Amino acid sequence: MSEVFSFAVEARAGVARRGRLATAHGEIATPAFMPVGTAATVKAMTPETVADTGAEIVLANTYHLMLRPGPERIHRLGGLHRFMNWPGPILTDSGGFQVMSLAELRQIDTDGVTFKSHIDGSRHRLTPERCMEIQCLLDADITMVLDECTPFPAAEDEVARSMRLSLDWAGRCREAFEARPGYGLFGIVQGGVHPDLRAESAQGLIEIGFDGYAIGGLAVGEGQETTFRVLDTTLPALPADRPRYLMGVGKPADIVGAVRRGVDMFDCVLPTRSGRTGQAFTRNGAVNIRNARHGEDPRPLDADCRCPACRDFGRAYLHHLVRAGEILGAMLLTWHNLTYYQDLMAALRAAIVEDGIEAFCADFEARQAEGDIPPL
Amino acid sequence: MSEVFSFAVEARAGVARRGRLATAHGEIATPAFMPVGTAATVKAMTPETVADTGAEIVLANTYHLMLRPGPERIHRLGGLHRFMNWPGPILTDSGGFQVMSLAELRQIDTDGVTFKSHIDGSRHRLTPERCMEIQCLLDADITMVLDECTPFPAAEDEVARSMRLSLDWAGRCREAFEARPGYGLFGIVQGGVHPDLRAESAQGLIEIGFDGYAIGGLAVGEGQETTFRVLDTTLPALPADRPRYLMGVGKPADIVGAVRRGVDMFDCVLPTRSGRTGQAFTRNGAVNIRNARHGEDPRPLDADCRCPACRDFGRAYLHHLVRAGEILGAMLLTWHNLTYYQDLMAALRAAIVEDGIEAFCADFEARQAEGDIPPL
Repeated sequence: MSEVFSFAVEARAGVARRGRLATAHGEIATPAFMPVGTAATVKAMTPETVADTGAEIVLANTYHLMLRPGPERIHRLGGLHRFMNWPGPILTDSGGFQVMSLAELRQIDTDGVTFKSHIDGSRHRLTPERCMEIQCLLDADITMVLDECTPFPAAEDEVARSMRLSLDWAGRCREAFEARPGYGLFGIVQGGVHPDLRAESAQGLIEIGFDGYAIGGLAVGEGQETTFRVLDTTLPALPADRPRYLMGVGKPADIVGAVRRGVDMFDCVLPTRSGRTGQAFTRNGAVNIRNARHGEDPRPLDADCRCPACRDFGRAYLHHLVRAGEILGAMLLTWHNLTYYQDLMAALRAAIVEDGIEAFCADFEARQAEGDIPPL
Repeated sequence: MSEVFSFAVEARAGVARRGRLATAHGEIATPAFMPVGTAATVKAMTPETVADTGAEIVLANTYHLMLRPGPERIHRLGGLHRFMNWPGPILTDSGGFQVMSLAELRQIDTDGVTFKSHIDGSRHRLTPERCMEIQCLLDADITMVLDECTPFPAAEDEVARSMRLSLDWAGRCREAFEARPGYGLFGIVQGGVHPDLRAESAQGLIEIGFDGYAIGGLAVGEGQETTFRVLDTTLPALPADRPRYLMGVGKPADIVGAVRRGVDMFDCVLPTRSGRTGQAFTRNGAVNIRNARHGEDPRPLDADCRCPACRDFGRAYLHHLVRAGEILGAMLLTWHNLTYYQDLMAALRAAIVEDGIEAFCADFEARQAEGDIPPL
């Protein structure tokens, strides 16, 4: 538990950083991967097992929680930490992305966005001010500004308009954010794949001043090469003493490449969602456990993994569970994937401290090619 | 681990018994409740958490496992214990009930039953001999004879014909069963709600000779009063030194009443299936956690329960999970229900030892009436 929200870089390897983020509900070693707990639960996991994987912070979803069960209710129940029994740090996204991808009949104006719930069709409004209020009610350690998620692809002038609206909202969020010891507010750099727009966004956010800076609007279909190119031009423009969070990323190879470029924080549904469909990430590449060739294989999914799925069961059993649609299949593969992601982050942190990040990346790439399906 | 399959009655209270059953894979305190692990998994639970609830034996399903992944495959993988990582005793049902309730185009002849898989329409045949072979391949500590499950209601002559066919099959099962140290074979008393047919079935099975005796064909819609009446006439006809297993039962009140009448073993999908639909069993009666009145209730589901659902979360959170269709809701409510059932069995065992079974039953009935829905 920290009385101040702070970030310290403890080691560097090239531009990659090993850091420590302190929040009201505890510290996080970075680079960090945040499991996604959309509806105040990391799907198919208990909070205890999420912590067992090595996760120190989880992400929860403003959009989903504002619709059900509602931020005022969660506040009355003592906040999100108590509600979901996760005593550690929580980051909440702003809901901007989900309004664009899930809600019906959304109408954006310069003041905010009106939309219909995808659950029951009820009408809702999200403004920068209400977004700050909701995340405060949820008691998020890290609050994200409300932004407009620009579709990809989009014409450059549309990307510019959208980025400038997000910048305006970021200023209003900063104003509305209720400062509390140990709680922080992150800005979100937008600007699509255009270096000048990304630079304008970063500069504008820095002038407003945030506790951390996220890169939004990537991993939306532009391809890994483009993602990395945007990172290469955007990250140097951000303050070196603040955490950098690449939103919604990603595949293991995306994370490795982004850490090497100086990103500190990640979130992605991939390990959890893939776990529910039989896709596993292993030290030797991606595995589709539904594949018939695993049906009689007694070996563990990943011989070097410490998770219960690998420690207690063989591939044949996991194959059976997934084929039979058993909940335990989703539980075990999610557990494995999250463990794999956390072990990957721990290995990256160690490689930075030992200045072995280049060797790590080369070894990682060679091993991934061994998987039975192309990297997801 | 026991070299002989044995049962010892250690205490009595009226006709209720506190016993100990020894099998090749460990001992079981009776009266015992066996969680149902249909497809080699107790749904939404890991084997470790099943054991944490206090369960010492699980039930697996011959019908489901013969269709997928197949008994020969499970045998090649080292048997069911290793496959599903349950080192303790396992009872497998014979598949007779599922052939009747799930399979398509089933055709019974005096030699066996032919049916189509409900999964892929493939054709299968189950005879008493094949049924014994399958359960041996699965490595079940307790094997059940193949019986024909008589529909309820049915004309008495139909019930008699069916019971006598089952008796014939029971003899063939006894012949085909491969005796191994620590492994046992149970006969199944049939005969519907007719005392004379039940008596004929019991007498026939005793003449064949089994390691334990099950009561089949109850809890199929005849009502609790009738179930208890059949038990009252059937149980005294069974050998006092052999375990008695009431198949597919039941609600907590059914179990309490049956233990009081001298039953030693139970299995039922109720705690697991109800857990996946938001129904919870508590010391104060049944609770439907979906009910709006739990939406903002911070109290535990059952204040006297030791399970994680009750220890770590409030009703409001469980309500939210179930309403949102989250897997964690199914996991936590299943965990709770199985814990409740095991604690009920432990309390019944203690009441027998202390000769307090009548007081226990009175207290149990008074508390159950407090639930927010009628007992399930």
